Amino acid sequence: MRLSQYFLPLIRENPSEAQIASHRLMLRAGMIRQSSAGIYSWLPLGLRVLKRVEQIVREEQDRAGAQEILMPTIQPADLWRESGRYDDYGKEMLRITDRHDREMLYGPTNEEQVTTIFRDAIKSYRDLPKNLYHIQWKFRDEVRPRFGVMRGREFLMKDAYSFDLDQAGARHAYNKMFVAYLRTFARMGLKAIPMRAETGPIGGDLSHEFQVLAETGESEVFVHPDYLEMDWEKFDDSWDREEGRDALGTAVAHFTSLYAATSDIHDPAKCPVPADKLVTARGIEVGQTFYFGTKYSKPMGAVVAGPNGEEVPLEMGSYGIGVSRLVGALIEANHDDNGIIWPESVAPFRVGLINLRASDAKCRAAADALYDRLRTAGVSVLYDDRDESTGAKFAAMDLIGLPEQVIIGPRGVAAGTVEVKHRRSGERTDCSVENLLARLAGK
Amino acid sequence: MRLSQYFLPLIRENPSEAQIASHRLMLRAGMIRQSSAGIYSWLPLGLRVLKRVEQIVREEQDRAGAQEILMPTIQPADLWRESGRYDDYGKEMLRITDRHDREMLYGPTNEEQVTTIFRDAIKSYRDLPKNLYHIQWKFRDEVRPRFGVMRGREFLMKDAYSFDLDQAGARHAYNKMFVAYLRTFARMGLKAIPMRAETGPIGGDLSHEFQVLAETGESEVFVHPDYLEMDWEKFDDSWDREEGRDALGTAVAHFTSLYAATSDIHDPAKCPVPADKLVTARGIEVGQTFYFGTKYSKPMGAVVAGPNGEEVPLEMGSYGIGVSRLVGALIEANHDDNGIIWPESVAPFRVGLINLRASDAKCRAAADALYDRLRTAGVSVLYDDRDESTGAKFAAMDLIGLPEQVIIGPRGVAAGTVEVKHRRSGERTDCSVENLLARLAGK
Repeated sequence: MRLSQYFLPLIRENPSEAQIASHRLMLRAGMIRQSSAGIYSWLPLGLRVLKRVEQIVREEQDRAGAQEILMPTIQPADLWRESGRYDDYGKEMLRITDRHDREMLYGPTNEEQVTTIFRDAIKSYRDLPKNLYHIQWKFRDEVRPRFGVMRGREFLMKDAYSFDLDQAGARHAYNKMFVAYLRTFARMGLKAIPMRAETGPIGGDLSHEFQVLAETGESEVFVHPDYLEMDWEKFDDSWDREEGRDALGTAVAHFTSLYAATSDIHDPAKCPVPADKLVTARGIEVGQTFYFGTKYSKPMGAVVAGPNGEEVPLEMGSYGIGVSRLVGALIEANHDDNGIIWPESVAPFRVGLINLRASDAKCRAAADALYDRLRTAGVSVLYDDRDESTGAKFAAMDLIGLPEQVIIGPRGVAAGTVEVKHRRSGERTDCSVENLLARLAGK
Repeated sequence: MRLSQYFLPLIRENPSEAQIASHRLMLRAGMIRQSSAGIYSWLPLGLRVLKRVEQIVREEQDRAGAQEILMPTIQPADLWRESGRYDDYGKEMLRITDRHDREMLYGPTNEEQVTTIFRDAIKSYRDLPKNLYHIQWKFRDEVRPRFGVMRGREFLMKDAYSFDLDQAGARHAYNKMFVAYLRTFARMGLKAIPMRAETGPIGGDLSHEFQVLAETGESEVFVHPDYLEMDWEKFDDSWDREEGRDALGTAVAHFTSLYAATSDIHDPAKCPVPADKLVTARGIEVGQTFYFGTKYSKPMGAVVAGPNGEEVPLEMGSYGIGVSRLVGALIEANHDDNGIIWPESVAPFRVGLINLRASDAKCRAAADALYDRLRTAGVSVLYDDRDESTGAKFAAMDLIGLPEQVIIGPRGVAAGTVEVKHRRSGERTDCSVENLLARLAGK
């Protein structure tokens, strides 16, 4: 994409309404604009990141055997009366009356809705286990929305729902999602520490929050120091196979063996880690898993015929990932004073191509040619072809935070080289166009 | 995907609530389930089609130079007061009051919202032209929702918005979208005839509806007989280039040269086609384009500095495609008594693999092996590995409507062949596995 044609409204000054880095940088880098309190529009650059994050989440759900569906945003209130949660949710639920005076609501989550769909479709234990997920916009009418997309009112969430015949099956489904979550966050370069958590309005007695440590996190968390050294990217594929039921349990046991708790649950008197060793930090919750058994299936009559023909209420769990929030969390974990530093797996473009002298015919020809060759080689590239000052171009590219910058100037054009700046390390090297293309092809 | 594991709740009998073929077949084929009046959940099979339709729409928008953004579903009422449309929209607008008693609404369209975003970002004529689109759920509180996803309340729409300095530019932007629409529908195998249309609550004085002829269409349309013979798939790439401004105008003139009108506009007294030649038919509106000039930019102060520094209000147009409705329209145009007949470009899977004897070890081994080889060759395949009767399997596969069925039975296994049934023609042929794989690879 040529920057001269891209809809990318950059902002030079820090917007006064933004208190944390991700909110500030998403506004400045032209990723989002506020529509009203806690509600945002995603501009082209932001949407590219949102989609990459969404796609990683989707791939790991699919890999874990979950099947994608899409439930609507607007639900009938009666559905929530069936489960008994309609009044529990309080003012966070956006309640709506339609033209025929029917009570509706904008879904904050979908346990009731998916239970109805499943109940009406599946009649026999032979059709179990199943896991259905969707990636859809949700609404929670926060009393004080803040921190940009980190605590918005309209937000994109992936929520999965598992259905099993018995507790052992449900526990296996829980473990599958648990490992899928570790993989999902690891692919984005995030260390998301699973912590035992309160179940809140979802219910049940087993739940983990996945917390990314960051200074601007809104929860206080207490973790064993060994978590910080753990290898989060080492996963054994045997976990995926049905035979891997034990391996999966072992993996979950490993990643939950050390102490980690949010302040809601942390009790210094009972904490097994000595106070001088315990790490106290701030965390951003990026996902949560729940096992709640028959909490919804019983009141809603979601049963199957068991092996002996008896009616068995479904054992269920639900599993959420804050997709739009993750974009903010990624920036909180990856930025410096100059701007964002995207991990490659979620970067909106792989390369930022800068032509230092847009007015120079030779530079323009070299930059145009490289732009075409990069695209032909399957490299996603944002090309700053604007007639701006060198300083403005460097500042814009650092702010946007693409993994590598390829800089074309008169000296390099004469020598047949380009300069490559690695955004995270700041390291600059000269290299030939051929070497650059060979290294980046397909990225 | 193995059918034994797929969440695909098929229904044998025609559901009594469904009046038209697409609604009936989408329910029966397990594509959708109703949540409440005019609001649907998309199950795995339906979502696959919805995404393929969405992706074709996206690719043709991108090809036409439009840039994708994503605006929220919930908008502040004040935005619509700025344009003066808040009261115009009547009861079709779903109005919402949030916890702080602020008036909000679920967007039925986004002219106001995109105008605000653009107004705050773009200050100079040098940044024009631009076209921003998004694919997002909308809500129109229809008094009588019906026909399944064809006239739902919550529906997925692609809406694009063009911004230009002058009328000539805006007309060019209109023509670009017009041709993008012809391409979009042609890729889905649909003949969508552009007809001059009323502008309704969007406004402006130039508008076309794109109507697919189908018996169950809700509009009565009157078209020149030559439209039925026109080659809708012949497009000249020169239209895409900036130099192609004239070619684009010629193309639009060609496709609008013949008489075509909806009953809203049709006047028998003024119709240039003799009554005995005029084709009277039913049409399904799948898209609409609007040029409305400064209708929104003037009241909302969306201006840029022109070449001489003067303030120029933006010339705008908007362009909608009913993405979820298209799934219904495609079925209306492609079905028979046995079920759906998907065009290849939007089929949820390319191939349905049927193992006639799930209990026979040799058949199962042959079918399992072919399933793996097809997937390895990049063919999307739904594999009916269930232990059901032959009749039930054939009926299910015809209902689902995948382009080709590959049938494995004892006779073929012995002879080293498979039987291939073409869903549309009903033609059956025997062929070797190698020939099948060579023909289908990558589809």
